[in-house]
Amino acid sequence: MSTTTPRNYTKLFIPGPIDVSEDTYAAMSRPMIGHRSGDFVKLYEGMMPKLQTLFGTSRPVFLSTSSAWGTMEAAIRNLTQKRVLNCCCGAFSDKWNDVAKRCGLEADALRVEWGEAITPELLREALSKADYDVVTLVHNETSTGVMNPLKELAAVVNEFDDVLLVVDTVSSFSATPIAMDDWGIDVLLTGSQKALALPPGLSLFAASERAMKRAEATPNRGYYFDFLEFAANAEKFMTPSTPCISLLYGLDHQLNKFFAEGLENRYARHRKLNGMIDAWGAKHGLTHFAPEGLRSVTLTTFANDRDWDLDAWNKRLKNEHQLMINMGYGKIKGKTFRISNMGDENEATIQELIDALDATLPV
Amino acid sequence: MSTTTPRNYTKLFIPGPIDVSEDTYAAMSRPMIGHRSGDFVKLYEGMMPKLQTLFGTSRPVFLSTSSAWGTMEAAIRNLTQKRVLNCCCGAFSDKWNDVAKRCGLEADALRVEWGEAITPELLREALSKADYDVVTLVHNETSTGVMNPLKELAAVVNEFDDVLLVVDTVSSFSATPIAMDDWGIDVLLTGSQKALALPPGLSLFAASERAMKRAEATPNRGYYFDFLEFAANAEKFMTPSTPCISLLYGLDHQLNKFFAEGLENRYARHRKLNGMIDAWGAKHGLTHFAPEGLRSVTLTTFANDRDWDLDAWNKRLKNEHQLMINMGYGKIKGKTFRISNMGDENEATIQELIDALDATLPV
Repeated sequence: MSTTTPRNYTKLFIPGPIDVSEDTYAAMSRPMIGHRSGDFVKLYEGMMPKLQTLFGTSRPVFLSTSSAWGTMEAAIRNLTQKRVLNCCCGAFSDKWNDVAKRCGLEADALRVEWGEAITPELLREALSKADYDVVTLVHNETSTGVMNPLKELAAVVNEFDDVLLVVDTVSSFSATPIAMDDWGIDVLLTGSQKALALPPGLSLFAASERAMKRAEATPNRGYYFDFLEFAANAEKFMTPSTPCISLLYGLDHQLNKFFAEGLENRYARHRKLNGMIDAWGAKHGLTHFAPEGLRSVTLTTFANDRDWDLDAWNKRLKNEHQLMINMGYGKIKGKTFRISNMGDENEATIQELIDALDATLPV
Repeated sequence: MSTTTPRNYTKLFIPGPIDVSEDTYAAMSRPMIGHRSGDFVKLYEGMMPKLQTLFGTSRPVFLSTSSAWGTMEAAIRNLTQKRVLNCCCGAFSDKWNDVAKRCGLEADALRVEWGEAITPELLREALSKADYDVVTLVHNETSTGVMNPLKELAAVVNEFDDVLLVVDTVSSFSATPIAMDDWGIDVLLTGSQKALALPPGLSLFAASERAMKRAEATPNRGYYFDFLEFAANAEKFMTPSTPCISLLYGLDHQLNKFFAEGLENRYARHRKLNGMIDAWGAKHGLTHFAPEGLRSVTLTTFANDRDWDLDAWNKRLKNEHQLMINMGYGKIKGKTFRISNMGDENEATIQELIDALDATLPV
């Protein structure tokens, strides 16, 4: 668990990378093993059921040595044969549309304003307009703090035949329940440096049977991100290429912590800590950038209504309290600020952050 | 530096991943920083001149969060417009030909028997036969222990106009001098878990100006491995996607160790330790799998002439000495065995290995 001061470094409350606990670094420092050895098989096999529970799937969960952008690109490269619809509502979901075009794919954007969510109605309308075979959706748009209504949107995609739904859960995964199989999600992917509270460099993903069938018939998948290679290797609890072993040690350690805490307790903790940030904002009359009912439980994006000097604020937070929050991303940099409550935090460490925010408030 | 026993784990003398020193793990456990922060810029900028010296280039060195297979695939995807010639002399170089085809590229293999090297004459002849625009070469074929004559082969490629040379130096990088610019290499790439003595998960590469020009004109490069994205970000000492920060801390630490030791001393140390393994083999009348003068300085592949039970041998090494070597790879598994002298090893630790090999020899 994360501790309060004293601290000889700047602790990050930005929406990733976030603070990594000492016990996780200790786990990551276990000696190397061969990635084709029985020790590796044991490590991966031991994590598999826990990962499947977190994903809400009976499908194998794959380990990709990359950031999540690697598997985000991989998913559209492996699955798109006709046309992809990218649901765009912020910096990361917008970029997915750009990446699709860079891969030479036919791609359209379903756009809403930053700060708004994708609605089932808009999605249904967009899907009726062209012959799509893939939809991309960012569950929790980390740039705006919007959490899209995943279950409802997945239901809409499933109204259409042969349309696969690819969902980025980078900043929501493990912090809020997700039921990949029950909700009908075809590819669920995430990264290590958000709610998992690991350093970056590892992406996790799973693919439905029909996604794997589609991939089989998609040419030029290459090797490094070929879904079929991941599947063939995962059957033996191995990976196509040499994996980031230290991060996998860290993942194993974190999974054990999550299940010792209990997933329901973990979800409740994230809601509670998020509520503390919410209450702090209400006390100061701050405006949320995301609409009520569609807000992330792992990070909060406030509008900078009063035109505070955010850089000066963050500098004071850093110098006087060894803490850092984030001053907005992309085209809303400076117009918003973001506070994370992801990872191993607890009431004491979030209270410490709130006290520091109060002590340095630019009013 | 690596230490001798006592040890509560199995120390790897396989040709990667190899043993990682305690001081490296300590460096990797430094607290997280934002990857768009000044702290990250400082980290990358500080490493750049050291990396350029090791690469023998004035070009920027890029940091890819992937195993080396990621950048091996990236290089042929970014650069091949006509046809790629893959120099094949072992498991890894053979596979590059397979990967090229999986990317939908026109690809031919220049094949020699496993255990032999690619010769300048063979390469010149192959290049004369078709209109190639890319050649791939594995400098140090880790499966056979052959070190190809890189400088001479690069000179041959440079006899042909508009043919780019892509070189994998995964198991030779930093252990033997390589002069990317002077020898006319267009893409030089490596991985973290071999001579750099880091855990896996990081690949480094650099690209010549003409390689970057070629990439500019190559369609469908995507995003994650787009050479132009790496270049645009490296100008600001950043990376396209969230990088493996812990491994970069480790790299920074290892680079400082290398330059404190002195590169010439480091190269000499690898030759000396390799010579100790060579002498041990000679004492027992063992046959090298690679020809004299074309042998790796980081690992040794011996032929299993006497049909030893290699698995039983390695089991004794593990149980009685907490050490492990490798029992061959791919189609020469069981017919060869491999011993690494890469990384932070020294005369004492290699002597310890030799004593253990002697004590358990299957004769």
